[in-house]
Amino acid sequence: MRERVLAGRLSEQNIGESVLLKGWVQKRRDLGGLIFIDLRDKSGLVQVVFNPDHSKAALEAAEGVRTEYVLEVTGSVVKRDEGTINPAIATGRIEVVAKDLTILNKAKTPPFLIQDDTDVAEDLRLKYRYIDLRRNKLQETFKMRHQTTQAIRSFLNDDGFLEMETPILTKSTPEGARDYLVPSRVHHGQFYALPQSPQLFKQLIMMSGFEKYYQIARCFRDEDLRADRQPEFTQVDIETSFLTSDDIMDMTEQMMRRVLKEVGNVDISLPLPRMPYDEAMARFGSDKPDTRFGMELIHVSDIVEQSSFKVFKGAIESGGKVCLLNVKGQAVNYSRKDIDQLTDFVKVYGAKGLAWLKVDDGQLTGPIAKFLSDEEKNGLIERATAADGDLLLFGSDKTSIVYDSLGALRLKLGKELDLIDENTFHFLWVTDWPLLEYDEDLERYFAAHHPFTMPVEEDFDKLNTSPGDVRANAYDLVLNGYELGGGSLRIHKKEQQMKMLDVLGFTREAADEQFGFLLEALEYGAPPHGGIALGLDRIVMLLSGSSNLRDTILFPKTASASDLLTNAPNDVSKTQLDELSIQVNDKE
Amino acid sequence: MRERVLAGRLSEQNIGESVLLKGWVQKRRDLGGLIFIDLRDKSGLVQVVFNPDHSKAALEAAEGVRTEYVLEVTGSVVKRDEGTINPAIATGRIEVVAKDLTILNKAKTPPFLIQDDTDVAEDLRLKYRYIDLRRNKLQETFKMRHQTTQAIRSFLNDDGFLEMETPILTKSTPEGARDYLVPSRVHHGQFYALPQSPQLFKQLIMMSGFEKYYQIARCFRDEDLRADRQPEFTQVDIETSFLTSDDIMDMTEQMMRRVLKEVGNVDISLPLPRMPYDEAMARFGSDKPDTRFGMELIHVSDIVEQSSFKVFKGAIESGGKVCLLNVKGQAVNYSRKDIDQLTDFVKVYGAKGLAWLKVDDGQLTGPIAKFLSDEEKNGLIERATAADGDLLLFGSDKTSIVYDSLGALRLKLGKELDLIDENTFHFLWVTDWPLLEYDEDLERYFAAHHPFTMPVEEDFDKLNTSPGDVRANAYDLVLNGYELGGGSLRIHKKEQQMKMLDVLGFTREAADEQFGFLLEALEYGAPPHGGIALGLDRIVMLLSGSSNLRDTILFPKTASASDLLTNAPNDVSKTQLDELSIQVNDKE
Repeated sequence: MRERVLAGRLSEQNIGESVLLKGWVQKRRDLGGLIFIDLRDKSGLVQVVFNPDHSKAALEAAEGVRTEYVLEVTGSVVKRDEGTINPAIATGRIEVVAKDLTILNKAKTPPFLIQDDTDVAEDLRLKYRYIDLRRNKLQETFKMRHQTTQAIRSFLNDDGFLEMETPILTKSTPEGARDYLVPSRVHHGQFYALPQSPQLFKQLIMMSGFEKYYQIARCFRDEDLRADRQPEFTQVDIETSFLTSDDIMDMTEQMMRRVLKEVGNVDISLPLPRMPYDEAMARFGSDKPDTRFGMELIHVSDIVEQSSFKVFKGAIESGGKVCLLNVKGQAVNYSRKDIDQLTDFVKVYGAKGLAWLKVDDGQLTGPIAKFLSDEEKNGLIERATAADGDLLLFGSDKTSIVYDSLGALRLKLGKELDLIDENTFHFLWVTDWPLLEYDEDLERYFAAHHPFTMPVEEDFDKLNTSPGDVRANAYDLVLNGYELGGGSLRIHKKEQQMKMLDVLGFTREAADEQFGFLLEALEYGAPPHGGIALGLDRIVMLLSGSSNLRDTILFPKTASASDLLTNAPNDVSKTQLDELSIQVNDKE
Repeated sequence: MRERVLAGRLSEQNIGESVLLKGWVQKRRDLGGLIFIDLRDKSGLVQVVFNPDHSKAALEAAEGVRTEYVLEVTGSVVKRDEGTINPAIATGRIEVVAKDLTILNKAKTPPFLIQDDTDVAEDLRLKYRYIDLRRNKLQETFKMRHQTTQAIRSFLNDDGFLEMETPILTKSTPEGARDYLVPSRVHHGQFYALPQSPQLFKQLIMMSGFEKYYQIARCFRDEDLRADRQPEFTQVDIETSFLTSDDIMDMTEQMMRRVLKEVGNVDISLPLPRMPYDEAMARFGSDKPDTRFGMELIHVSDIVEQSSFKVFKGAIESGGKVCLLNVKGQAVNYSRKDIDQLTDFVKVYGAKGLAWLKVDDGQLTGPIAKFLSDEEKNGLIERATAADGDLLLFGSDKTSIVYDSLGALRLKLGKELDLIDENTFHFLWVTDWPLLEYDEDLERYFAAHHPFTMPVEEDFDKLNTSPGDVRANAYDLVLNGYELGGGSLRIHKKEQQMKMLDVLGFTREAADEQFGFLLEALEYGAPPHGGIALGLDRIVMLLSGSSNLRDTILFPKTASASDLLTNAPNDVSKTQLDELSIQVNDKE
């Protein structure tokens, strides 16, 4: 039997060959008694011609053919006439003249066209995901996802890592996000949880003496979804023993360099820049700054602390800050109405308003100008290196609100004003994170990363005195303003882990109940260890130039965590529930 | 800073070097004022000597050291004295004389010794899995598991496959084994199910035009566990478009050849033997025959159908069979009492008894001999090529009971009599499976594999007339008597899939409710497709020479689906259940 060839691989080199093709009908055209079919397979397209001079039978069979029919075609590769050459496709200099045609399967008219630029509603695309995925763009994305995982594996394998699998049916440890639960049939009233990450298992793997572990791991979080979240997602999960955080960051950088080179043919130079958390917040108002453009936050509290503009003065007196963004040369392009819209935007982040000034003929103008002394005005102009035509936008509030609102505003303006070079990859390590965050409502500390993160050694004693000042031995990797992931060294001594849980408000009993197995394992020769986890979906999103995380996941779920293709979740039978000894509460 | 070296990599080549080691204390011995420590890391062991002449401080520090302490040691590599060379370990010709010692972590006395031969109760090993995994044997098993998955990936990547991820939160389709369910928080009273396999998704991937897919996929079945079952397991999941079953079997064979070569350095010759299901049952009483030894079932119904031994005659008259095993030369080793034990053994498989004969001086002897005519006796001797000293064991009952009981007895005797060469790998394809199995209690057909399996083309019409006779276009791969996995071509036309569901007793509504998305997808240009799934855990078990599936899974569960290490499943809070709108029924 003749071996099938791939449509997209045919070229002038094959002219004169008889070939067997199998694929889908991308398009059919009838022209002058001939039928032309663009036949598509995973490799691309080729034009097949049905010509009565060559095969009347094949032509007749082709008459019944419609878009997306699945065909088997034999024919000969011929050169196209000069006038019909199509330079837009790889096989555009040749065509296949059909000798035999078999219809392998029919197709109804698809609910939408299979083409790269689509404005079809996403819900319809998700319901017919198997049609959507036939689009070239998504085919390429999933090839790229494949290449990305293989490049990661190849790097880690070469570096002596073992790929290992941790359980999906695990123990619920409510610290962190909300768990997906799985009722046990055998153990009445008990539940497994799906892992939010393999964190504790990878630490146990280190305690098992494996030293270098990785996994392309599925993780689950039952959270209210945003555009860039999915209930299940995939992370590149790595853990090592005996390495320093510098070692782990170096290794990760080299891995990412290999990925970008192999998948995107992009060179990045190492080492990647690093920035302490405090600096990232102060300069960019973000713990994951997009460093592809400037327009950093400019701190001016010292200049305006005595200002008669009460908003500024009040913010500083209450322990907050005044910062500004200098939107260079944009004064003329932002009307009062435009600025009102920016004001609405920052209010989402808790800001009460958005003070502004414009620079005109060396002078600051705008509604608040009259509250500022000349000294203050000159100070601002100098600090902001403001020039004629610049627009200054102010944040003045609690520090966290100033950072959040101006950080978000900076990103918005960066995009609006086209300040971002979309073809560059700006990596950044954010280091020296706070270990703990204080929740003022609940009046307790939470772990900023997770409760197993190692404090910076010299800060350890502060756990007793000022827990909020303790830095973590942790690092996040940021790419173009997205957090790719992060990691840390972990606590490997029992007494330190107990101390940490104590600061987090765990009683001895609660600590034992939830993490007893870890605490015990720390007593049997736990090595110093640490690692990192990177979001694979997000890496692929950035590499493929997509802005929609769902385009990087083969069968994604909607914002309400539904699978529109299969209709999951769905109703199950009473028998199934009875076997699990559970029942559904009445709807309130 | 000096770079750490791995203990097991040191050799005479390193003599004179100063090295930095990190690892665990395998053993400590005090001798003549010196302390000897076997330091273990992931690469192996090296002996470290603490000698007051070299470093009094290090010796003093070593005095506090116990088994499984985690150490950092610097020292010099020296040649051992002739008399102290230890040929049993790779580094036995050298030792490291310690200069500095840092205790990185302490360890309590482990609950059991970390050594390869262990008789520690498995429950204790599972509770302290992180200690158990430090044993060399398990370290090697998980290296082998890693190598196995990489060899599989490397083969499939080279062959143009894409690795893709299918969802874990999917739709419950109760056909098959019992689903693990996951309550939805957002959709009141609805549930996800964990996938028993990615079957429907991989078919949808074919309908998405990807043509060659694989995944090292986690699968879940909530079944009562046997020794070789786990609630979650891993399969090498493969699907292809446009290939024949021969193509898929060829590809799988080549993949397995690569795995055995790369992981076990074992050569197997292709093509692998194939055997129709009916033949496997008739010759070995098993659909997964262990072909490493003979002792096949010998069919003698025709010889004894008129016998005055009513058990034989009755079995045949009721439509059953009489078969025997010739246990060559073992007559003298099986007393009546021994045979009684074998009788108890076959009763587990539904046999009512175990008739037997011995060959002595050319004559058949034994309790049933007197019921057999000379012609019958001679017929049996000839058919069984029985010789003096042979033991003949009979099964006579319904065919399925004869096959099950003699098939199991054959395996038992094969092991007992050491007929099996444990160092060989006997692969076998079992083909031409029945498509359907009839359940006499429920009076309906079930899919022998799953409802998406393609019938053999020429049998298709029999779906209307004699469904039980329809063969499936399916194939199982057997290794040394274990089913590694199996596959099939799938139905790719809607009307055939509807017909199949109809035969399985689905109403039109039930078919739509459960598989509507598949039926619809079949209408939009589904290509011919098929694939295979192989059990990774079992492949690793056979490659590593283990007989316990739990030794191939990093964190396995017990027969009651518990994780003894973390204590999963466990109780969860009422808040968690309330958020999911479920409650636990009272215990009956």
